[in-house]
Amino acid sequence: MKFSTAVLGLAALSSICSCQEYELEDGTDHSNRPLIHLTPDKGWMNDPNGLWYDAKDELWHAYYQYYPEVAHWGRPLAWGHSVSSDLTIWNDTGVAIRPHRNDSGAYSGSMVIDYNNTSGFFNGSVDPRQRVIAMWTFDSPGSETQHISYSVDGGYTFIDYEQNPVLDINESNFRDPKVTWHEETSKWIVTIAHSQKFEILIYSSPDMKDWTLESSFSHSGFLAFQYECPGLVKVPVVKASNNDYVPANLTYPNSTTYNSSYFNTTFSQGDELEEAWVMFLSVNPGGPLGGSVNEYFIGDFNGTHFTPFTPQTRFVDFGKDFYAFQTFFNTPNGKDVIGLAWASNWQYCEAVPTRSWRSSMSIARNFTIQEYAPNPESVELNLNSMPVYDRESLIANQSRITTHNRTLEKNSAIHLNLSNNGTGVFDFNLTWSLNSSVYTNSDVAEFSLYLIGSDNSEEYLRIGYEGNSGAFFLDRGHSDVDFVSRNPFFTDKLSTYLEPYETLENGLNSYKVYGIVDRNLIELFFNDGSEAMTNLFFFSDGNYINEVDIRTSIDHCYNIEELSIQQLGI
Amino acid sequence: MKFSTAVLGLAALSSICSCQEYELEDGTDHSNRPLIHLTPDKGWMNDPNGLWYDAKDELWHAYYQYYPEVAHWGRPLAWGHSVSSDLTIWNDTGVAIRPHRNDSGAYSGSMVIDYNNTSGFFNGSVDPRQRVIAMWTFDSPGSETQHISYSVDGGYTFIDYEQNPVLDINESNFRDPKVTWHEETSKWIVTIAHSQKFEILIYSSPDMKDWTLESSFSHSGFLAFQYECPGLVKVPVVKASNNDYVPANLTYPNSTTYNSSYFNTTFSQGDELEEAWVMFLSVNPGGPLGGSVNEYFIGDFNGTHFTPFTPQTRFVDFGKDFYAFQTFFNTPNGKDVIGLAWASNWQYCEAVPTRSWRSSMSIARNFTIQEYAPNPESVELNLNSMPVYDRESLIANQSRITTHNRTLEKNSAIHLNLSNNGTGVFDFNLTWSLNSSVYTNSDVAEFSLYLIGSDNSEEYLRIGYEGNSGAFFLDRGHSDVDFVSRNPFFTDKLSTYLEPYETLENGLNSYKVYGIVDRNLIELFFNDGSEAMTNLFFFSDGNYINEVDIRTSIDHCYNIEELSIQQLGI
Repeated sequence: MKFSTAVLGLAALSSICSCQEYELEDGTDHSNRPLIHLTPDKGWMNDPNGLWYDAKDELWHAYYQYYPEVAHWGRPLAWGHSVSSDLTIWNDTGVAIRPHRNDSGAYSGSMVIDYNNTSGFFNGSVDPRQRVIAMWTFDSPGSETQHISYSVDGGYTFIDYEQNPVLDINESNFRDPKVTWHEETSKWIVTIAHSQKFEILIYSSPDMKDWTLESSFSHSGFLAFQYECPGLVKVPVVKASNNDYVPANLTYPNSTTYNSSYFNTTFSQGDELEEAWVMFLSVNPGGPLGGSVNEYFIGDFNGTHFTPFTPQTRFVDFGKDFYAFQTFFNTPNGKDVIGLAWASNWQYCEAVPTRSWRSSMSIARNFTIQEYAPNPESVELNLNSMPVYDRESLIANQSRITTHNRTLEKNSAIHLNLSNNGTGVFDFNLTWSLNSSVYTNSDVAEFSLYLIGSDNSEEYLRIGYEGNSGAFFLDRGHSDVDFVSRNPFFTDKLSTYLEPYETLENGLNSYKVYGIVDRNLIELFFNDGSEAMTNLFFFSDGNYINEVDIRTSIDHCYNIEELSIQQLGI
Repeated sequence: MKFSTAVLGLAALSSICSCQEYELEDGTDHSNRPLIHLTPDKGWMNDPNGLWYDAKDELWHAYYQYYPEVAHWGRPLAWGHSVSSDLTIWNDTGVAIRPHRNDSGAYSGSMVIDYNNTSGFFNGSVDPRQRVIAMWTFDSPGSETQHISYSVDGGYTFIDYEQNPVLDINESNFRDPKVTWHEETSKWIVTIAHSQKFEILIYSSPDMKDWTLESSFSHSGFLAFQYECPGLVKVPVVKASNNDYVPANLTYPNSTTYNSSYFNTTFSQGDELEEAWVMFLSVNPGGPLGGSVNEYFIGDFNGTHFTPFTPQTRFVDFGKDFYAFQTFFNTPNGKDVIGLAWASNWQYCEAVPTRSWRSSMSIARNFTIQEYAPNPESVELNLNSMPVYDRESLIANQSRITTHNRTLEKNSAIHLNLSNNGTGVFDFNLTWSLNSSVYTNSDVAEFSLYLIGSDNSEEYLRIGYEGNSGAFFLDRGHSDVDFVSRNPFFTDKLSTYLEPYETLENGLNSYKVYGIVDRNLIELFFNDGSEAMTNLFFFSDGNYINEVDIRTSIDHCYNIEELSIQQLGI
């Protein structure tokens, strides 16, 4: 285990449960394991659960659906646990919650900090900042009910509430409670998926024990097979035209610098909108791209009912590997909205070519609502996200490549090499401009970055942009790994439409993408986070990307305004 | 031109317009051109327009966005015209409507039959069944307005209304009028996309000339970049549990056999719902799969307002090549809802590897609303579609392969060969059952049909089903055609989730797919049309599919209950 008690200031206590004990053994195939993403040391992981920030120990806690025995989903399904001081390096602390029956599962749920001891679970020995209560779904054959458990050791071990379940509506598809605190009514609010009825049930409680059904939010979005993992959270609104917001990705944890802009902004329709509620929702199987997808709705929540501003359907991420997103309860400044998703897809998650462990979480993202013009005639509210991690600590002694103002030509590729002893981990900032006068609608007017493996150049990711379609694309199909070509669901070519970021002085439109590559995961954030795309990719073991070739199909169409590639290491 | 005046009983008159005349020359690259789908003889085609059925001559008229000069979109953009007696073989009759300025376009629109001469355009010399009026968008730089034109020769040439435009709201993105007749209020109703405002404007008129704005349907569905090609149509509701409906695909034009079931059915929620209104809507660019996608909403229309029953987003087709769907005004029995879509995607439509012509329409589809269980706990209304074409005429002297009750084994592929002088056109009916007890969640439990080219077996389509994901998949990436591998938007792997069709006597669930393959287009209809998937594919010229190999990854998991493959020819 990587877990260091020194970091935590606490020893991981053994669970009080008497059911099957999981043996954790060190995995053997770590070569392509992401470095700066949460992965389980060993075994199977899916949904993030119980995310919370411990303000006393300044520690992020992430739990997750966990089957440690083998790297496949199985029962008894537990909650694994990992902690991080910086949302960058995670330390696996093993099983935190396990079901009391081997044929069952501690399914997804969330945690809250019960500062005021509304539950009565805590006495003075537990710091108010660490009074955590988990609410989770006890899944047993034919039944799903909601249980609560609390911790008196800062989130490492949990005690089941004696009178569980706290919610039982005699249903077998009733799961994934995500609890929040509603300040105005001084109540706990939980959203739970009544999955196959396509409704999110909203309950309130004064004490986390007695729950009253308040409303149902149903048949919204793209329904697919079922609803899972709902979540309701208040998100700051940032006005784009007066945005002195500093993306957290570059500066975290120094997040105070950008909070001043949250609360003096104006919504374009003339309303003074400082914050809005966002309902997150996951659907699987049957997402439009195949399998799993995360949706969201922006609206208002009055303590009992969530009302979306519009009936439209929106997706949090346009990649194929972003599911079951959940936000942290509490953040250092109490206002940021930060969360994690599971970076995989149920269509192929159990077949991906890792062995002793399977699945990673996305990088943490910081969410804001921003004005956004999806086309020249509209301004809409949009959920913006940028990654949050301690970049400064990762760039020490690592090489950096920059180039700027390079007009691309068909017969002259640009070759950029990262250092030979590559880590397989880097980020990049790319700004390009488009001269649309040099091509016609009959051209494929693209430029591509080929992100090429160091040991085998036949393995590469291709990413780029094409002018006629207005879309940024990713092709992850160029690999010798059998899974990539054979698995019928590992979609090769994915894309997302982009509006221009800004118009340059020369009149050309420019576009931006910020990317993080971590061994077998690429996360792209467009135009400062108005859209994002998370995708797995798989090269042969140890064949880390260390070369970037830039090519175009049209002369003088694209100018690389700025490209910097920063190798990252730990 | 293939057009035969004998078929029509009318000569194609020359247009009255004096602008640029288009010269039609015979194309040269017909080898992979679909046989039983509408394609232009030469030049560029996109959206279907002005679809109507002529009950006097028993002829289907389809118009389409047309640029005949080259096989790329261009101005002046006209309406091409093609006719068919059976929705199977189409005869290109050339340009029907053209704009009066060369820098402009006769953009998409629709046609109605003005039986009662509400417009005053017709006198006794025109049979009421042929009193057609087109409503279309005149697009010129910076402006889009609605024009009407009428025909006194049965739809071959059109006369522009002298007082055009009939609708001008001083906007540049206001297009694609689709007109219907609203019986209850005795008015024409048109839906027009106010594209970049994400609204569908609904107007009414007594005479097709004077239009009154009644309402706006906005911000519904998945918005993407913009709305296009709306359409409002009344669709029969068929109760699945009492369904003596005979799918039109096998028997058309003998459609009277199934209409009796339309109007004595019961909606499962207890309402007597005989029909409902469906709003169709296309969005592009920015669809979830990339580029273009067609959505729909089921609801009620009271003559002024459309109200969807639920706020959910639904897609008409889960493939990547189904856009700008439009229904025919009038059908032989006056109740069927039949329409065509453009079978391509704006992300790559101009780059597909055909030369003298580009794009085809989908096969015609007959739509009904049926009860459907998207999961074991819900019953929803669903838009069902099955293909409509004259299959009987296509199977004469063509070979047929059938097999049934074949349990698949890993080491024993099934090889099926179509005749050596293959046409590249066939359909198939496949029913399989799934034994989910023989695999675990860690298996990729798939079976695949490899549809292999006759000249080059490296070129194949792979379609099949996988048990853990519950999805049917298609992989169109195995081709020597450069476009297939190089174009960054020609997504290889696509899939759709399937619910079981029925439970067999042995307790196993079974599933059904009906497929039509026509040279470079494959259309799949699942479980009698509850879901559909339309996708282009490209093999080398003349390399028609003539072999089907069936393989599985798991022994005794799949049983081919029934497979018949029918070669088709004209």
